Amino acid sequence: MSTSARDAPDRLTHIDGDGAARMVDVGAKAPTARRARAEAIVRMEPATAAVVAAGDAPKGDVIGTARLAGIQAAKRTDELIPLAHSLPLSHVDVSIELDSETGIARIESVASTVAQTGVEMEAMTACAVAALTLYDMIKGLQRGVSVESLQLLEKTGGKHDWRRPE
Amino acid sequence: MSTSARDAPDRLTHIDGDGAARMVDVGAKAPTARRARAEAIVRMEPATAAVVAAGDAPKGDVIGTARLAGIQAAKRTDELIPLAHSLPLSHVDVSIELDSETGIARIESVASTVAQTGVEMEAMTACAVAALTLYDMIKGLQRGVSVESLQLLEKTGGKHDWRRPE
Amino acid sequence: MSTSARDAPDRLTHIDGDGAARMVDVGAKAPTARRARAEAIVRMEPATAAVVAAGDAPKGDVIGTARLAGIQAAKRTDELIPLAHSLPLSHVDVSIELDSETGIARIESVASTVAQTGVEMEAMTACAVAALTLYDMIKGLQRGVSVESLQLLEKTGGKHDWRRPE
Amino acid sequence: MSTSARDAPDRLTHIDGDGAARMVDVGAKAPTARRARAEAIVRMEPATAAVVAAGDAPKGDVIGTARLAGIQAAKRTDELIPLAHSLPLSHVDVSIELDSETGIARIESVASTVAQTGVEMEAMTACAVAALTLYDMIKGLQRGVSVESLQLLEKTGGKHDWRRPE
Amino acid sequence: MSTSARDAPDRLTHIDGDGAARMVDVGAKAPTARRARAEAIVRMEPATAAVVAAGDAPKGDVIGTARLAGIQAAKRTDELIPLAHSLPLSHVDVSIELDSETGIARIESVASTVAQTGVEMEAMTACAVAALTLYDMIKGLQRGVSVESLQLLEKTGGKHDWRRPE
Amino acid sequence: MSTSARDAPDRLTHIDGDGAARMVDVGAKAPTARRARAEAIVRMEPATAAVVAAGDAPKGDVIGTARLAGIQAAKRTDELIPLAHSLPLSHVDVSIELDSETGIARIESVASTVAQTGVEMEAMTACAVAALTLYDMIKGLQRGVSVESLQLLEKTGGKHDWRRPE
Repeated sequence: MSTSARDAPDRLTHIDGDGAARMVDVGAKAPTARRARAEAIVRMEPATAAVVAAGDAPKGDVIGTARLAGIQAAKRTDELIPLAHSLPLSHVDVSIELDSETGIARIESVASTVAQTGVEMEAMTACAVAALTLYDMIKGLQRGVSVESLQLLEKTGGKHDWRRPE
Repeated sequence: MSTSARDAPDRLTHIDGDGAARMVDVGAKAPTARRARAEAIVRMEPATAAVVAAGDAPKGDVIGTARLAGIQAAKRTDELIPLAHSLPLSHVDVSIELDSETGIARIESVASTVAQTGVEMEAMTACAVAALTLYDMIKGLQRGVSVESLQLLEKTGGKHDWRRPE
Repeated sequence: MSTSARDAPDRLTHIDGDGAARMVDVGAKAPTARRARAEAIVRMEPATAAVVAAGDAPKGDVIGTARLAGIQAAKRTDELIPLAHSLPLSHVDVSIELDSETGIARIESVASTVAQTGVEMEAMTACAVAALTLYDMIKGLQRGVSVESLQLLEKTGGKHDWRRPE
Repeated sequence: MSTSARDAPDRLTHIDGDGAARMVDVGAKAPTARRARAEAIVRMEPATAAVVAAGDAPKGDVIGTARLAGIQAAKRTDELIPLAHSLPLSHVDVSIELDSETGIARIESVASTVAQTGVEMEAMTACAVAALTLYDMIKGLQRGVSVESLQLLEKTGGKHDWRRPE
Repeated sequence: MSTSARDAPDRLTHIDGDGAARMVDVGAKAPTARRARAEAIVRMEPATAAVVAAGDAPKGDVIGTARLAGIQAAKRTDELIPLAHSLPLSHVDVSIELDSETGIARIESVASTVAQTGVEMEAMTACAVAALTLYDMIKGLQRGVSVESLQLLEKTGGKHDWRRPE
Repeated sequence: MSTSARDAPDRLTHIDGDGAARMVDVGAKAPTARRARAEAIVRMEPATAAVVAAGDAPKGDVIGTARLAGIQAAKRTDELIPLAHSLPLSHVDVSIELDSETGIARIESVASTVAQTGVEMEAMTACAVAALTLYDMIKGLQRGVSVESLQLLEKTGGKHDWRRPE
């Protein structure tokens, strides 16, 4: 299994005693430097990837548009995720590598802040929206392109650092 | 491969002759009834799923919050996806089935409209944000939960209907 | 009681058979002209109202700001109310009458569209946000100003017209 | 009267010498821990409340949806209230108690931050939007449901603490 | 003078009899195809333009980012302009020509819809935000870059077509 | 020329080695007090300005609406400008002077914060959206009104203060 439950608490931090959804109160925490990296994998036909790569050559807009959409979405994570805190990101970046032979686009995001809570949702949101935008821009070329994976790679700066096991 | 390239055009509809990103002009199309369904798979540890299911019992908020977040995100697809059109959705719904034995949550969305362009991005966005919200609400229980798949199931009402091959 | 239950259905239209929140599907409805009016009452000390009225004299900004905030909020109703549909409003207006003797500000909104669903939430949202803005602008003058009422006055254009009983 | 004008300044803090609306400059203030609580009362027919309570039983979505909408709106207060500052909330919560005998739903919100300005507008906005959402979800059951009150209960952490007189 | 007052009415359509700001009621108008083009001129040092052009060569992101920002902003015109209507754009595009010799970037936008009201604000907003983004991306290279002009070029489809006189 | 390239770096801070658009990482910077002023010039026919001024007399809404729109837009700069950071503004203000003889409206904005990055984009955005709103409110009176200039006047609090040369 590609997941890990180390250091897991025994209750849902977003659910109070009555089962109602709640936001975690971070008021008593000191701000610390936080950073998170996430990854999404989008699989298309190699022929599609070739067109993207070629069409990408002159101005690079498929990849560039997806990158920007991911960066912009990270800044709006608190609007998308109901119980997420509003965070002033000090940095967010998205990179996309497209392998024309396999048709696999690997999207990686990194987000950082100095805050009382972490930025893993910001990193995950950046990857998700970059993947959706990539999908949007090639859906006229190929139907049914799949996002095959969306997951956190690493987070640091909170109570426990975490890195996805190899 | 779980994807299909039937009826694919030979160029990127979002890229013009110079390679610059562009929005498709739908002004000459007649509005028709459009519908799309998408699916996301989130895999967690069975122990996590059991806590969600139990914690879910009294008020059902993990699943309920993720559903609502997906519905709300669908209405804002045009803000997230740079080249998507603004569409008045006539309906959007998200359902989530959680299997406590396998730890697999299956999210399915459906979106519909009467418009000049389709709603597959709205259905995809609903699933993606529901999955991100599910992740957010259980990340305190288990680190590294993965979205294992995000894909379109079906779309109808445009020039060509499409259904994901079994 | 100032409310009415005429023509009420026997179930929650936003709740499906399993109790999950849902958006009403309006895809099968024909667009018709819809209109709704709502009202909010804000009560302040007469001394506060006098300052607002006097401060209002040169440029009228307390009232003007609250009016604009209400109009703008009506256009974003679908972002605030999770299961509301996105609607292109053909018109929305907010008027505010302030009685300096009683300290009562009466806010009235009207919203209209040609759509498959009504605009009562848009009218209610306009009044609510105008009232909140009025509160914000006078909270430095008087603590604890109350919104004493927020209610629909009338709606027309759907299956059943409705007017609040005198 | 349920309001209080203790410590009230003699001018509108949002209006400058020319009567033009203005945002208060908080740049010279030190950040302190701020907290505010607000309340809204929604009155429906007892029969409506009974359906909500029963429909609420299996998955609790009427109450749950209204709660989430209030929490989400609090995070966007600065977009709704023209002269409000953008604030990173450390916490916001909304609770709703529905009395099926009287038909009264009592909504209470609490918001907190560490900032240069207070969070009373965030608490008020959370209550207002939770009330609007509650209204939206039961308007198919009963026409003309009223919000009977929306007011601040308490605020602490600024120059003067305030609590609504009994 | 580069402006024209042909066919101008004798009153402010956004101001009612009492001087209060208002939205125009378009409910009685029939939807027609509307189109508008606008233009912005940004002047930078030729040396700055040369770096943009060279830096632009490999991936074209300064120009590409500004284009996308303009397209995205056009879709949110109704959120920025208080009395603008929400419109479903059928198309919006932004093109940018940068002359490295003069240092002049010419931004042109086009927006179209089928609606009851025009899209000139959408075209103007697209140009304005593309210009702001261009400014943002080169402000580290050169301080004080100026937007020298922002104006409508043409609008068609309403009661009176209009084209900017040469 | 009205621009200045003092202290300009030799590369695009928003473009990385591969030419891809990127957000500047401000995580290592200490927060300091930042302030920026910007200006926009809108030129209309004197006859138009006279109507605005007269229509402005009773309630002042053309100018008032444009001012508010600018203030509100400044708070959303991070949503409009793709690579801008989210900043908690401690203050933003917009003033507009209309000269009925020349038909020139001069818009000036000021924005301030205590943050790791500056607020010049916030000041520029405030002026741009105030100018667009002014345009929107008088476009029924006069076609083709031009924004003739949009530029930064001054910024302080970063590594280098800057003031536009006379």
